[in-house]
Amino acid sequence: MERPNPMLDELKKILPTIAENAVEAEKLRRVPDENIRLLKSINLHRAFLPKVYGGLELSLPEVTDCIAALAGACGGTAWAFSLLITHNHQMAMFSKQAQDEFWGENPDATASSSIAPFGKVEECEGGVIFNGDMKWSSGCDHAEWAILGFLRDNKETGEKDYCFGVVPSSDYEIIDDWYSAGMKPSGTKTLRINDNTFIPEHRIEKAKAMMTGASSGFGLYPDSKIYYTPYRPYFACGFASMALGIAERMLEVFKNLTKNRTRAYTMAASGKEIPPLMRLAESTHQVMAARALMEKTWDEHKAFGEQKRYPTDDELAFWRTNQAYAVKMCCEAVNRLFEVSGGSTWIHDNEIQRLWRDCNMTAAHAYTDYDVCKQILGRSLMGMEADPTMV
Amino acid sequence: MERPNPMLDELKKILPTIAENAVEAEKLRRVPDENIRLLKSINLHRAFLPKVYGGLELSLPEVTDCIAALAGACGGTAWAFSLLITHNHQMAMFSKQAQDEFWGENPDATASSSIAPFGKVEECEGGVIFNGDMKWSSGCDHAEWAILGFLRDNKETGEKDYCFGVVPSSDYEIIDDWYSAGMKPSGTKTLRINDNTFIPEHRIEKAKAMMTGASSGFGLYPDSKIYYTPYRPYFACGFASMALGIAERMLEVFKNLTKNRTRAYTMAASGKEIPPLMRLAESTHQVMAARALMEKTWDEHKAFGEQKRYPTDDELAFWRTNQAYAVKMCCEAVNRLFEVSGGSTWIHDNEIQRLWRDCNMTAAHAYTDYDVCKQILGRSLMGMEADPTMV
Amino acid sequence: MERPNPMLDELKKILPTIAENAVEAEKLRRVPDENIRLLKSINLHRAFLPKVYGGLELSLPEVTDCIAALAGACGGTAWAFSLLITHNHQMAMFSKQAQDEFWGENPDATASSSIAPFGKVEECEGGVIFNGDMKWSSGCDHAEWAILGFLRDNKETGEKDYCFGVVPSSDYEIIDDWYSAGMKPSGTKTLRINDNTFIPEHRIEKAKAMMTGASSGFGLYPDSKIYYTPYRPYFACGFASMALGIAERMLEVFKNLTKNRTRAYTMAASGKEIPPLMRLAESTHQVMAARALMEKTWDEHKAFGEQKRYPTDDELAFWRTNQAYAVKMCCEAVNRLFEVSGGSTWIHDNEIQRLWRDCNMTAAHAYTDYDVCKQILGRSLMGMEADPTMV
Amino acid sequence: MERPNPMLDELKKILPTIAENAVEAEKLRRVPDENIRLLKSINLHRAFLPKVYGGLELSLPEVTDCIAALAGACGGTAWAFSLLITHNHQMAMFSKQAQDEFWGENPDATASSSIAPFGKVEECEGGVIFNGDMKWSSGCDHAEWAILGFLRDNKETGEKDYCFGVVPSSDYEIIDDWYSAGMKPSGTKTLRINDNTFIPEHRIEKAKAMMTGASSGFGLYPDSKIYYTPYRPYFACGFASMALGIAERMLEVFKNLTKNRTRAYTMAASGKEIPPLMRLAESTHQVMAARALMEKTWDEHKAFGEQKRYPTDDELAFWRTNQAYAVKMCCEAVNRLFEVSGGSTWIHDNEIQRLWRDCNMTAAHAYTDYDVCKQILGRSLMGMEADPTMV
Repeated sequence: MERPNPMLDELKKILPTIAENAVEAEKLRRVPDENIRLLKSINLHRAFLPKVYGGLELSLPEVTDCIAALAGACGGTAWAFSLLITHNHQMAMFSKQAQDEFWGENPDATASSSIAPFGKVEECEGGVIFNGDMKWSSGCDHAEWAILGFLRDNKETGEKDYCFGVVPSSDYEIIDDWYSAGMKPSGTKTLRINDNTFIPEHRIEKAKAMMTGASSGFGLYPDSKIYYTPYRPYFACGFASMALGIAERMLEVFKNLTKNRTRAYTMAASGKEIPPLMRLAESTHQVMAARALMEKTWDEHKAFGEQKRYPTDDELAFWRTNQAYAVKMCCEAVNRLFEVSGGSTWIHDNEIQRLWRDCNMTAAHAYTDYDVCKQILGRSLMGMEADPTMV
Repeated sequence: MERPNPMLDELKKILPTIAENAVEAEKLRRVPDENIRLLKSINLHRAFLPKVYGGLELSLPEVTDCIAALAGACGGTAWAFSLLITHNHQMAMFSKQAQDEFWGENPDATASSSIAPFGKVEECEGGVIFNGDMKWSSGCDHAEWAILGFLRDNKETGEKDYCFGVVPSSDYEIIDDWYSAGMKPSGTKTLRINDNTFIPEHRIEKAKAMMTGASSGFGLYPDSKIYYTPYRPYFACGFASMALGIAERMLEVFKNLTKNRTRAYTMAASGKEIPPLMRLAESTHQVMAARALMEKTWDEHKAFGEQKRYPTDDELAFWRTNQAYAVKMCCEAVNRLFEVSGGSTWIHDNEIQRLWRDCNMTAAHAYTDYDVCKQILGRSLMGMEADPTMV
Repeated sequence: MERPNPMLDELKKILPTIAENAVEAEKLRRVPDENIRLLKSINLHRAFLPKVYGGLELSLPEVTDCIAALAGACGGTAWAFSLLITHNHQMAMFSKQAQDEFWGENPDATASSSIAPFGKVEECEGGVIFNGDMKWSSGCDHAEWAILGFLRDNKETGEKDYCFGVVPSSDYEIIDDWYSAGMKPSGTKTLRINDNTFIPEHRIEKAKAMMTGASSGFGLYPDSKIYYTPYRPYFACGFASMALGIAERMLEVFKNLTKNRTRAYTMAASGKEIPPLMRLAESTHQVMAARALMEKTWDEHKAFGEQKRYPTDDELAFWRTNQAYAVKMCCEAVNRLFEVSGGSTWIHDNEIQRLWRDCNMTAAHAYTDYDVCKQILGRSLMGMEADPTMV
Repeated sequence: MERPNPMLDELKKILPTIAENAVEAEKLRRVPDENIRLLKSINLHRAFLPKVYGGLELSLPEVTDCIAALAGACGGTAWAFSLLITHNHQMAMFSKQAQDEFWGENPDATASSSIAPFGKVEECEGGVIFNGDMKWSSGCDHAEWAILGFLRDNKETGEKDYCFGVVPSSDYEIIDDWYSAGMKPSGTKTLRINDNTFIPEHRIEKAKAMMTGASSGFGLYPDSKIYYTPYRPYFACGFASMALGIAERMLEVFKNLTKNRTRAYTMAASGKEIPPLMRLAESTHQVMAARALMEKTWDEHKAFGEQKRYPTDDELAFWRTNQAYAVKMCCEAVNRLFEVSGGSTWIHDNEIQRLWRDCNMTAAHAYTDYDVCKQILGRSLMGMEADPTMV
């Protein structure tokens, strides 16, 4: 009952090469250039690019299926590239002027991001002056721009507005500090922003405006089916996609391992044993259920955009949190298999062991923190106000 | 994103009465007559009746949504009535002669069943002679017929064929022995078959024939969308439906309880506490994922029937086992909430406590035994032969 | 490596009769008189009675082992009787005058209790006037006294003091309202206190005084090994004991069931199957770990009392919460087995099914609420102040 | 309630240095020489050395407490060194001649081992000729001998006997192939045995003889309290010890992390949040229960040895499997904390992340495979014969 997805068909042709590069990619601690070249050759980076700049404006479910498949070949490549893709969707909510600067001359341009507000901003004429080291910018080695998160004084409310500003790569230097136990190829390095970098007003948007259909670019593309939406569900669609792809790959690898495995001390053949196949079955069901939940959720995102229907806060609470539950399910499925895969799989270039690390790291992001998500959804269900410390 | 379902709309009108009857139904240990009358008044029992006898031939997803909703009002009523519904689907695979006897004069006729092969059969001219007490016949008080499971010698293979035979209610007496800790209203009593009851050949089918499109009635309704299928996925669709309906009701009842609950010893208000709302959120996600999995599975059943596509053994392994995984998820969701509902909910007419018992009993059926299902699917995934002790 | 326990040896002689009475006890919804007579015949009710009144002053571990064994025979009897036992320990912290009234003429006297503060008190000369219906008084049918919990204005602090007052059975009427899904024989009924019942000051103690070694009777028995302690760890030792005893019985019953079980539909012999024996093993380990944790905890209680060492708040946080974790482990162990025991075990007089209900109800008490306990211990570990809504 | 343990007191003095070396030890992929020197300086390696050679003959509980503490400082050092310690216990079951060769001139000598039967043996005059690469020899860089496992034809039974043979380090070369995702400092490298290495008969014992009190050295030390036992419970005591030590360290590190943690995106202070402290509490209870189970088990080992009581097969089934259950509990406790520790902990020299890897790898050994252990214990409980493919 698979749905047609021409981009996925193209992607599948290049996945074997990306899978072959996976061990090397971990050593590189960044996405191999060949992977980027291949992915751009099929225009996957243009999935969410506005058509006016040559983009494809693919539906969310088409894209998430591609990210999942990509993650099955190399989790770290999927992490970095999915963000390059989805940042384009976010950029489409900035001002026309920002978009022209961004894509006008180079429609293949993409952005990495660093949005935890570690930097300092000062107000100035026509924008802000930015200073700081900005951590965790996945895929930055391959991006022409960066989206930075920061807090800005709101003189009217007396509070801080959480904002995004966009800067070209000439405004920062990349610090090679990505030594991680998981998602190594994501190249999630620090951007050292040049001293007193100026970010002009037309390249700044408030996060809240992007969640309420009030950003400068909202409405620029009235005929599009994918921009009538808060930015976040698109921005963050990669996590559950990756977890699904990794977990689905794990099912396959574990099956093959078990079929051929002989226990080291007893020479018993695992392929005939009941317990591993029961684990395989349960993990299979769990990943299927996670996928079914996300397909239904992503179809809803798609339908809302097509129907020009904006989600309510209660609907957003589900969109925000369903993905974290799906990630949790995938982790459980992966861990259930890894824990009986045997000591040999712990050797550093073993795929099972890499899938385990990558899947668990996917669940370690602030956005996939399920304790936070349970509180967000739980408060919504109980009719309580949202807790501002949990977004 | 709800799908239109006119039968469900009708059903919702009568559910409040059925819910009101739930405590009384537990005491009765059978479905109250009023419930049956109401359900028949909207023709839910005709959901799978062939159109030629006045049936509706509803799609499987329409029916499972109804069973779920019914179970949210009264689990035991749903258990019994869903079997009356689905047995009609099974009957449509019997010979034309059997169907005419069954529905010819009374298109409202339904059957209960008792299919564990506890009885004894002897071959005779034109059929078999049946003797025995047949246990666990849910809803038998309200059925005009019974479907009995038994083993019959196959002279060609030298083995036993598992068969179903249909007998009218005049052929048995109902023993009132249903004293259960769960699903009390299901009235799952013993049928004491009259001594030496004759079952004619035209009312006997082999189970295997019904799983391979080889029963007498297969193909009788070439224009129908719902009979081109093995009987089992329809026969057994009730379990996951019931578990979903019970669990969805539990989410609602737990939310209301918690909002209003004051802890007995400390007078603390549970409605402000973090842990219960986190449990509510996780159970909500889990039930949503279970539903998404089953909707996808049931849509697949429907599509196969419409496309006249018969499932392979590997596809059947998923259909057979997905439902048990969904039931397991629902039980976990229900148990997560019940275990923090407090001692007061243990009083015998408390709805939460009833939902807990009913949901766990749904998971206790041979068909929903997830240890068995894990083995069935695991063997299929590993490319092993099916184990004949697990069906 | 069992430790000598003469009381346990005596108890084991009468347990077969108590086990035989279990089904009848559920119907009675109170402890059968024969059970009480047998238990008193071996003086188990005198376990915590001060020696001066003819008591045994058994150590806590000796008593908890007896409660566990008793719960294996009949959970509801253990629930009620363990409270009659431990209330004697609490009574030994009241004034000498109260103790003389209580045991002076009848050293076999015991008390049930009802301590959620549902009643109303007014101050009066020499004590308080009490009014109200007091719920959940387990074993009240067999007690000569009742301990009531209530809130009393403290003029000095302006707050409410949580107090216990003791009244003779002539001061109340028992309402037969115990219709529960678990622990049915506990007879946990409502005490309707006579209008304007007077409780004299010498039969009132503040709960806090009993937790800080400041009650009237603290220090009355300087040579005793068991009264130099807060009252609560003794008062509440029954829950984990019961859970252990029920779970240990479950291991035995499940083993026997599985050895002899034939699956209804396939006639497969469960005694040869891998999955049930894996479940049995895991539940066995889990119950062993729960017992080991509690034995270590109870040995600590004992040692502190013998060494006249009073626990700190942080130590109390462990004592308060370890028991709930042990109960949780026992429930998981029991549920793991029950969920694959098959539909037949759901019939109302099946022991497995009763053990399942009783074990889960043990976990439903306010004292065994593990969400609360996690917060109590977690706050202690994190160095935070205790939350007054969680005691 | 801690028990006196002078060796543990000595150990604690050197642990800070070993903890400081932990990051470097991971890079080295072997135990740092300084660690070995420090550990030998307190004679921990002589814990199980026979007194006749200058050994301490410490009790098992004293040693396991030391291994746990060592693992809290550096898991990989504990892995390697615990095996050096326990191999001494195994050596004490070899012939007097072998022991004299091993310790006669160097009582500080220790052995690493490699016991999966990957090598080939040919019978020869007075022993066997051995060829092969022997994997997974933890701590081999620091050992003077190696214990090798191999299969040897038994002419009487026609089957293979699983045997251990001891060779000096001059008989092999170490291949530096230890690139693992966990327990990196264990230096678990391959021993390339010199071509046609001769192992004399007096340095060979059957594993079965060592499990049944029938090895050459059994009974050599009649006054000792620690050698009247099968070898395996001592040989393998390290796994649960390590898991406990790692998990106990995790509780501490997580607490400190959480107290000081500020969430990156929202600046919320984790030290005030309810969910992390609930996780901390549950993991604390779980590790306590695991420790209580193992202390009880290890005390039993000790008591049996002191009482010259040899365990039955059913008792051995518990000893064999309790440790794996404890390891599983520790892993769950560690994983519960790691999964909410945040993305920052994934950086490669973060202690939490290392503890997580090391704990999970402890559970990945053939000896700690809990699926296998459940079957071993389950078969024993059900009265079935042991399965020879599971030892």
